[in-house]
Amino acid sequence: MKQNFAVIGLGRFGTSICRVLAAEEQDVLAIDVNEERVNTLAAVTTQAIVADAQDEETLRSLEIGKFDHVIVAIGKNIQANILVTLIVKELGVPDITAKAENDTHARVLKRIGADQVVHPERDMGARVAHHLLSPNILNYLAINDDVTMAEVKMTSPEFVGKSLTELSFHQRFGLTVIAIQHGDQVTVSPAGSDVVQLNDELSVVGPTKAVDKLNDQMTK
Amino acid sequence: MKQNFAVIGLGRFGTSICRVLAAEEQDVLAIDVNEERVNTLAAVTTQAIVADAQDEETLRSLEIGKFDHVIVAIGKNIQANILVTLIVKELGVPDITAKAENDTHARVLKRIGADQVVHPERDMGARVAHHLLSPNILNYLAINDDVTMAEVKMTSPEFVGKSLTELSFHQRFGLTVIAIQHGDQVTVSPAGSDVVQLNDELSVVGPTKAVDKLNDQMTK
Ligand SMILES: Nc1ncnc2c1ncn2[C@@H]1O[C@H](COP(=O)(O)OP(=O)(O)OP(=O)(O)O)[C@@H](O)[C@H]1O
Ligand SMILES: Nc1ncnc2c1ncn2[C@@H]1O[C@H](COP(=O)(O)OP(=O)(O)OP(=O)(O)O)[C@@H](O)[C@H]1O
Ligand SMILES: [Ca+2]
Ligand SMILES: [Ca+2]
Ligand SMILES: [Ca+2]
Ligand SMILES: [Ca+2]
Repeated sequence: MKQNFAVIGLGRFGTSICRVLAAEEQDVLAIDVNEERVNTLAAVTTQAIVADAQDEETLRSLEIGKFDHVIVAIGKNIQANILVTLIVKELGVPDITAKAENDTHARVLKRIGADQVVHPERDMGARVAHHLLSPNILNYLAINDDVTMAEVKMTSPEFVGKSLTELSFHQRFGLTVIAIQHGDQVTVSPAGSDVVQLNDELSVVGPTKAVDKLNDQMTK
Repeated sequence: MKQNFAVIGLGRFGTSICRVLAAEEQDVLAIDVNEERVNTLAAVTTQAIVADAQDEETLRSLEIGKFDHVIVAIGKNIQANILVTLIVKELGVPDITAKAENDTHARVLKRIGADQVVHPERDMGARVAHHLLSPNILNYLAINDDVTMAEVKMTSPEFVGKSLTELSFHQRFGLTVIAIQHGDQVTVSPAGSDVVQLNDELSVVGPTKAVDKLNDQMTK
């Protein structure tokens, strides 16, 4: 389903949003005060405009209220970020995503009606830290506060060369094996006779604590 | 396993890394030229120091070479970021993560020996764009280029009120149901008789294209 998106603020964060949306063949209007940044996106997006988004008349003339989604990706200038969020809300945009610089800023954005508030630097910092703490957890997805799906790299001699039946992940850890990746090949719902090889990537689901315990077994 | 981390550059990205590592009871040395930022972290980290990390003597005196991981989280000053990465590499740090501002910068960092190069703003932009395109996909994890695990919110009347057997995700989409979340309650490996309720969160695994197709069914 094709939708209309307006992205205001074309730093790396806003530019990346524009590129992904354009690659998915969505209608994208890109806005920045910086002409160079607008020019870089002109070939990629449906429309790219040099403008100060704090000017309500400009946003009105662009009929911003008719867009399905507006993303306010202005960073350092918190005042501009808040004012622009307020204007697009008043002009009737049904879904607004705004970038926050800190917690206080985030609270203001939610109060004035931003539907999603994002903290790119903070959230990516947390992801990087988790990755450094658990290098064997290649990727994880929290289903809720207690249950996690994760892809775990099999590096411990305690696991390598044994079959899933022998390893009995369910009895030992309370984990269900979803898939096993040998090289590029992924087997969903592998058989008990499937043997774990060095550097295989095992996808499991279960209590977050059990995933941590499995990870600990790999690194000890 | 307790390890030593040094985080150089305490913007939001570096600060977030320090906070997560400290919460996991790791040894953390935090460094920045900005005294205010260092002071904010002094209570959280093992050690927090005001210093210009471009000064090799300072890094030597801190015995930076003995740290397990160094994270170079300096942003805008690309020259400082590169120089610091080079120094810590030469001082023998076995694992270096560096923040890149753009692709050229990333290539330089890899060439001089950074083990992980991260692009926080760009990667978070891509995540936000994917979320806006597929609001029913609450979370996803790419096992490889073709296979994805995803948590999909059940909002279409075509699905709600039917049992997993009736919905036959495997025949219709080629997807395996891993878990179902009703409210806060998660059931791993649900029974065929389990009935999908409005706003249930279904975790599935299978071809990425099949996940996209299921998502399309929710939003059409
Ligand atoms: N009032 C405004 N109207 C339009 N664009 C604006 C306005 N104020 C700032 N911008 C633009 O928003 C963009 C993002 O601003 P920010 O200060 O976060 O820069 P940045 O740090 O380079 O961004 P990023 O962290 O995403 O790389 C910049 O390109 C800036 O020109
Ligand atoms: N040579 C240096 N030695 C130590 N710290 C430095 C050095 N150069 C820059 N820094 C620090 O690195 C931190 C991050 O720099 P950056 O320019 O990315 O700021 P930022 O945009 O506020 O960060 P973020 O995007 O993570 O919020 C700053 O706190 C800055 O003081
Ligand atoms: Ca920024
Ligand atoms: Ca969930
Ligand atoms: Ca920055
Ligand atoms: Ca994988």
